[in-house]
Amino acid sequence: MNTFGHLFRITTWGESHGGAVGVVVDGCPPQIDVDISAIQFELDRRRPGQSHLTTPRQESDVVEILSGVFEGKTLGTPISMLVWNKDARPAAYDHLKDLYRPSHADFTYQQKYGIRNWQGGGRASARETIGRVAAGAIAKQILREHAETEVLAYVKQVHTLTATVDMDRVTLEQIEESPVRCPDPIASPKMVERIDQARRDQDSLGGIIASVTRNVPVGLGEPVFDKLKADLAKAMMSLPATMGFQIGSGFDGITMTGSEHNDPFYMEKHNESERIRTRTNNSGGTQGGISNGENIVFQVAFKPTATIGKPQQTVDMEGNEVTLEASGRHDPCVLVRAPAIVEAMAALVLTDHLLRQRSKSYSQSEK
Amino acid sequence: MNTFGHLFRITTWGESHGGAVGVVVDGCPPQIDVDISAIQFELDRRRPGQSHLTTPRQESDVVEILSGVFEGKTLGTPISMLVWNKDARPAAYDHLKDLYRPSHADFTYQQKYGIRNWQGGGRASARETIGRVAAGAIAKQILREHAETEVLAYVKQVHTLTATVDMDRVTLEQIEESPVRCPDPIASPKMVERIDQARRDQDSLGGIIASVTRNVPVGLGEPVFDKLKADLAKAMMSLPATMGFQIGSGFDGITMTGSEHNDPFYMEKHNESERIRTRTNNSGGTQGGISNGENIVFQVAFKPTATIGKPQQTVDMEGNEVTLEASGRHDPCVLVRAPAIVEAMAALVLTDHLLRQRSKSYSQSEK
Amino acid sequence: MNTFGHLFRITTWGESHGGAVGVVVDGCPPQIDVDISAIQFELDRRRPGQSHLTTPRQESDVVEILSGVFEGKTLGTPISMLVWNKDARPAAYDHLKDLYRPSHADFTYQQKYGIRNWQGGGRASARETIGRVAAGAIAKQILREHAETEVLAYVKQVHTLTATVDMDRVTLEQIEESPVRCPDPIASPKMVERIDQARRDQDSLGGIIASVTRNVPVGLGEPVFDKLKADLAKAMMSLPATMGFQIGSGFDGITMTGSEHNDPFYMEKHNESERIRTRTNNSGGTQGGISNGENIVFQVAFKPTATIGKPQQTVDMEGNEVTLEASGRHDPCVLVRAPAIVEAMAALVLTDHLLRQRSKSYSQSEK
Amino acid sequence: MNTFGHLFRITTWGESHGGAVGVVVDGCPPQIDVDISAIQFELDRRRPGQSHLTTPRQESDVVEILSGVFEGKTLGTPISMLVWNKDARPAAYDHLKDLYRPSHADFTYQQKYGIRNWQGGGRASARETIGRVAAGAIAKQILREHAETEVLAYVKQVHTLTATVDMDRVTLEQIEESPVRCPDPIASPKMVERIDQARRDQDSLGGIIASVTRNVPVGLGEPVFDKLKADLAKAMMSLPATMGFQIGSGFDGITMTGSEHNDPFYMEKHNESERIRTRTNNSGGTQGGISNGENIVFQVAFKPTATIGKPQQTVDMEGNEVTLEASGRHDPCVLVRAPAIVEAMAALVLTDHLLRQRSKSYSQSEK
Repeated sequence: MNTFGHLFRITTWGESHGGAVGVVVDGCPPQIDVDISAIQFELDRRRPGQSHLTTPRQESDVVEILSGVFEGKTLGTPISMLVWNKDARPAAYDHLKDLYRPSHADFTYQQKYGIRNWQGGGRASARETIGRVAAGAIAKQILREHAETEVLAYVKQVHTLTATVDMDRVTLEQIEESPVRCPDPIASPKMVERIDQARRDQDSLGGIIASVTRNVPVGLGEPVFDKLKADLAKAMMSLPATMGFQIGSGFDGITMTGSEHNDPFYMEKHNESERIRTRTNNSGGTQGGISNGENIVFQVAFKPTATIGKPQQTVDMEGNEVTLEASGRHDPCVLVRAPAIVEAMAALVLTDHLLRQRSKSYSQSEK
Repeated sequence: MNTFGHLFRITTWGESHGGAVGVVVDGCPPQIDVDISAIQFELDRRRPGQSHLTTPRQESDVVEILSGVFEGKTLGTPISMLVWNKDARPAAYDHLKDLYRPSHADFTYQQKYGIRNWQGGGRASARETIGRVAAGAIAKQILREHAETEVLAYVKQVHTLTATVDMDRVTLEQIEESPVRCPDPIASPKMVERIDQARRDQDSLGGIIASVTRNVPVGLGEPVFDKLKADLAKAMMSLPATMGFQIGSGFDGITMTGSEHNDPFYMEKHNESERIRTRTNNSGGTQGGISNGENIVFQVAFKPTATIGKPQQTVDMEGNEVTLEASGRHDPCVLVRAPAIVEAMAALVLTDHLLRQRSKSYSQSEK
Repeated sequence: MNTFGHLFRITTWGESHGGAVGVVVDGCPPQIDVDISAIQFELDRRRPGQSHLTTPRQESDVVEILSGVFEGKTLGTPISMLVWNKDARPAAYDHLKDLYRPSHADFTYQQKYGIRNWQGGGRASARETIGRVAAGAIAKQILREHAETEVLAYVKQVHTLTATVDMDRVTLEQIEESPVRCPDPIASPKMVERIDQARRDQDSLGGIIASVTRNVPVGLGEPVFDKLKADLAKAMMSLPATMGFQIGSGFDGITMTGSEHNDPFYMEKHNESERIRTRTNNSGGTQGGISNGENIVFQVAFKPTATIGKPQQTVDMEGNEVTLEASGRHDPCVLVRAPAIVEAMAALVLTDHLLRQRSKSYSQSEK
Repeated sequence: MNTFGHLFRITTWGESHGGAVGVVVDGCPPQIDVDISAIQFELDRRRPGQSHLTTPRQESDVVEILSGVFEGKTLGTPISMLVWNKDARPAAYDHLKDLYRPSHADFTYQQKYGIRNWQGGGRASARETIGRVAAGAIAKQILREHAETEVLAYVKQVHTLTATVDMDRVTLEQIEESPVRCPDPIASPKMVERIDQARRDQDSLGGIIASVTRNVPVGLGEPVFDKLKADLAKAMMSLPATMGFQIGSGFDGITMTGSEHNDPFYMEKHNESERIRTRTNNSGGTQGGISNGENIVFQVAFKPTATIGKPQQTVDMEGNEVTLEASGRHDPCVLVRAPAIVEAMAALVLTDHLLRQRSKSYSQSEK
C-alpha cells in the first residue's frame, strides 16, 4: 500500500509526469503549529535543479496545503498537501516507451501491472518522495515541540571518498553550507569534483548517508516487529536507490566481541539531576528495539543512479536486444538531495512511535 | 504491535519464562498441506541445546497445532501454534531483578512499560522467534507449492572469518552438514573453533547471515513503502541482535559507478521458451522494490550476543553503579541458530506479497 | 483514521470550507477502465443544489483526477481525485463560532481536539462524502467488470411515508426519475410534498434508505470480525446522520421463529446449469458473514437533519445558555442525496472483499 | 482478518471442535490489574449449559493465561488466553458432513474455502466469542480504572415480548438475577416460559439486546470512518446471528422532525462544578461519531437460532434435495448468553478509542 505509519500516517500519491504529486497526513495531533515556510525549506533541500550537481529538471516544487490546517494550526484532521508537476517533458521519454532501462523499475512494473506510465519513472521516480518530505517537516515540528528532538542527515561517503564528521556536534548549517551536503570541509570539495567528473562522463555515483537524532525520548519503539531499528530500516529501504541500512556499529560491529561491543551503563550526574547513560553507543540508540535516550545513529547505502548517459545493453518489450543511449535528465549522484528525504523518513518513524508510546502510557501518567 | 504482514499475517506472543510462546497465523489460504514434521524440522534448527555451540538451555520445543488445520490441510482460518517453556529457570535470574544488563532490553523495557518480566528476556528473548519459525514453515510450503520457490540462509561470516559460498548452488543439506551452518568446508571448522574459544573466554561473537531465494515469481513487492527490499529489511531488523541489512551489492556497491553497477537485460533462450534476465545481479533480485525473477540475495549483520560471562560495569534500578558477573545461560554466537529464523522471515515476506499480488492481478487473469 | 478498506482502500481528506475535498484510492487493480463521466454522474447525484429539496449551496463538484490513471486505464497506483470548494461562505458561520449547534459535532470536536474549523461542519459535513462517492464509482466499475454486480439504493421511507418497491426488479432509472429518489410512483410525490412542507416549516425530516445488490459472487466476507454484514454496517454507520443498520429481516425478523426464519436451500435448474439457491432471503444475502449469492439487501436509518431554521436552545463555549436561530444553508431531508453515498459505500466494501477473496483462492485456481 | 481494533487489538482463533479456542490481546497498556476471576466471571455468563434455557453442551470454559501478565499485572506485551474444547462430540455431526444446514455457514464456508471443519460450526460457532469475552474483561478493567466507565447489556425483547427497563439505573445484579438476563421482573418470567416452549417445540427464538454505557469520557471516536457508532456497529454485526444495530433513537427516530429529534444543550450545575449536557439523548451518546459524555445506548437484533430440531428442507453437497432432522445441541434462544458478548465488544471498542484519543491529546496535556 502507499501508506506508511500506524498512528502518524502518510499516504503519498502521484506519478512523476502526471498532474501532481502529493500526500495526505493522517493522525496528526491537533494544535501543532504549521509553518508553511518550514515545509517549503525542506522541499527546497530535495528539489531538482538546485545546482549543476543535480538533475537539470526545473521544478520549483511549491507546496499547497488543501486541508487540515486552520489559522496556522493543525485541526487533527487529514492534512492534504500537493505540488504540481511543471517541467514534465513526457515527449522526452517517447524513445523509452517500449524498452526497459537497466536497473530501473520499467520491467518490473510492466510485469506486475501489465501497464505503466512510461513518461518518466511513475511512482518509482524520486519525485514520489516530495510527499514524504512535506509530511516529515510536520513530524519534525512535533518532535521539536515535544522534546527538542532534532533529526539530521548528511553525506558521509561518495564513491570512494569518505568524510570525517563529529556526529554529536554536526549542525544543519554545516550540512547546508556544503554543495554536496557533506559537513567535512576537506571531503566536500573533493566530492563536488568527483560528482562533476561523473556528470561529464555521463556516468553516476553512489554513496552513504549518515543520520543522527539527538534528544530522543526513552521508550520509543516496540519489542518485536515494530522495533525502532526495524521501522527505520523499512523507512530507509523504501526509498528509491537504497541498498543497505545499518544502525550503530552495523556491519563493522561484527568483528568485535561481546565484551568489546556491549555498551556499559553509568549514571550521568549533571547539577541536580542524573540519568542513566551508556559510555559507548554501539547500539546506535536502541536496545531491544526501543530507544534508550542515546543518539540514534544509522547509515544508508545508495547505489549509483541507474539513469546514465553512457550506452547500455538492454531489451525491448518484444524481447529484442537493443542499445540504449541517453535516457533522460538525471542526477549524477542522488546523495546530494537525499539528506532531506532521510531526515523526513526518520522523523515520520519517530513521531509515529511517539504517539504510539503516548497511547500506552496513560496508566502511569494518571495513577 | 506484535503482528507482522498484511494478508499473510502472524501474531506472536509469549515471554521466555512465561507458560508458553506461540503464534497465530492469519490469512493462510485454505487447502495447503500442513506437515507438522516440516514445522518441527525448522524448530529443531533453531532450538537451544543443539550442540556445545549453543546455549545449554534444554528445550525440545515440540510444536502443538490448536486450530486452523483439519485432516492435514489448512482451513483458511487462523492457525494457532504453541510451544511450552519447559527448562525455564526463573530463579537463575533473581540476581538480575534489579539491574540492567548492558546492551540488553532490561533498561528500555523498564522505562517504556514501568514493569518487566525480569525472569529472562521476556519478549526480547530469542525465544519469541519460535512463532516466526513455525509460521515460516507454512509460508515455505506455500511458496514451494506455488512456484517451487526456495529460501535458504547460511552463516557467511563469524567474527573475522568469512566463507566462500556459491549462492546459486548452495543446498540446505550443505548448510545443515556444518555444525555452524556455514556451507564452506574450509571456513566451517575454523568458525567452530573460534566460537568454542569465545565460549571458553566467557565472551561472544557476531557475524553475517547470507540468504538466497531462488525461483522467485516476477512482480512481488509494491512500488513505494512496501517495496520487497523494505519489507525484507524490516523483517530482518525486527530480529533480536541484528544491526544491518543489505540487498544485492549493498554497502559494497557504492564504490561502483552506474555503468558498472547497472544490471544489463538480455533474453535467455532455453529450448522453446525465452525470458528476460539480467546478466549481473547487483540489484539483488528486485528493481523498483519489485522482484524481477533473479535470485533474491541479502545479508544481515548480527552483533555479538549481549549476554556474556565476563564481568561488566552497569547500574541497578536505584542508579547505583555495579559489576555484573555471569548473566545466565547463553549462546556464544547466535549465528548458528539464525538461518532458520532468517529463512522464516524471508518466507513470510514473500508469501504476504504473493497473496497481495494475487489480489491485484485478477483483472488480467480473467479478461 | 481517515482510511477505509483493507486491500481496496480509500483515504478522504478536506473540510467543508477549506480549499478542497478529495480522496486517494489505493489498491485499485491495474487496467480498469476509468470513465470520468461515470464518476461525475455519481457526484451529480449527491451534489447540493440539485433541486429545491436540497440545500441551496451551489457546488458543481467537478472532479479532477491527479494521478493513477493513464490513457483511460488505472495504473495500479494511487488514484488521487479532488473537488474544489467554491460556494463556501465562511462568513455565514461567524455567529456560530462560539456556540454549539444541537446534535451537531461542534461540541464533540471542540472537546476532542481543542480546536475546530467553525466555518461549516469541517470533516463532519456531508461534503466529506464526495471522496467516497468518487471512489465508489471506480469500485462499481470493478464489480461490473468482474461479475456484472450492481449496487442500488433508494429512498424507502421519509418521515412516516413508506414506499412499496420490488427490490428484485427496481432499476437505477426508476430511482433517478423521482425527485426524492423513491421509485414508488405513489409514495414519491407525497414525499416531495412532505419534504417541501418541512422546508417551509424550517424543520427537517429523516427516513430510511434501502439497498439491493444483485449478482453477488458467492464467498465474499470473512468469518469473524470482517463479516460482510459487519463491514457494511460500519460503512453505513460511518456516514453522517445514520442511526441504524439492518440486513435481511433485520429488527422485524425477531418476531419469527427459527423454523419460519431459516432460508431453505434448493437447487435452481436453469437450462444446462444448476446452482444452490435459498427459497427465502431473510438472511439478506449473507450467512456466517459470507455472501451466499442471493441479493444483498439492507436498510439504513437517517435521522432528521440537525441543521434547522427554527429557534433552538443551546450553550456557547463559555457555558452561557443561548437561543440559536437560523444556522446556515441545509437540506430539509438528506435522504434525497443519500442513495449515491450508500451505493458507494456498499460498492467499496464489496470490492475490498472481492480482492481479499481473490488473494486467498489461488490454491484452488491453480491446482 | 481475525483481528479487531487499532491500538487495543484482539486476534481470536479456534474452531468449535478443534483443540481449543483462544485470543491474543495486543496493545494492552502495562500495569493494569488482571483479576483472572473477573475474566472467568464473564466467561461463565456466556458459557453453554448454564440452565435449561441454553444448549446442553457442557463446557466449563476455564480460562488459562499463557503470557503478558506478571505478578498480577499486565506487562504491555501480548496476553494469550485459551480455553480447551472438552465436550466436543464431532461424531454427532457425522450426518451433517455432506449437507448444508439452512441459514448456517456450511454452504458459504464450503464455497469460500473449498474445505470446512464440518464437526460443528467451525469459526462460525458462537464458541469463537470466548476470546472476545475474555479480552473484553480486561478492557472493562481499563475502562473502570480510567473513568469508572461501566458497560452493561441485557435482554430487551424475546420474540414478541418486550421489557421495560430504566437504562439509566439498571444494574448488573438486576440483569444477572434473571435467568434470561432481562432485568424487568414482569417480562422475565414470560420470556423464560416462551423460550422453554420454543425448546419443547424444537424451534428457536430471536430478540433484542439493549446496551448502556455510563461515565463515558467525552471525545472518543473519530470523525469519519472510525466513528464510535460505526465501530460499535461493526463490533455488534460481527457477532453470530446479529441482523441489526441501532444507536439512540435508531429506526424509531425517523418519524420525528429535526426540531423534535435534536438534543438541546444545557449547563448542568452540581455543587462547584458544571458541565455541558443534553436534555434528551436521541443521539445515543455520540455526535459526529464522537462521544459527548451522555450514556451510550444502542440495541442489537439477533435472529432466531438457525439450529432447530424441526425437519427442514435443504440440499447436500452433491446437490440432492434432502430433509434435515435434528441438527445438534443448540440454544433455543441465544439472547440469554448474549449480554456478556455484547458488553465485551462494546468495551473493546471503547478501550481502543480511549487509547487512540490518548495518543492524540499529548499536545494539550503537555503544553
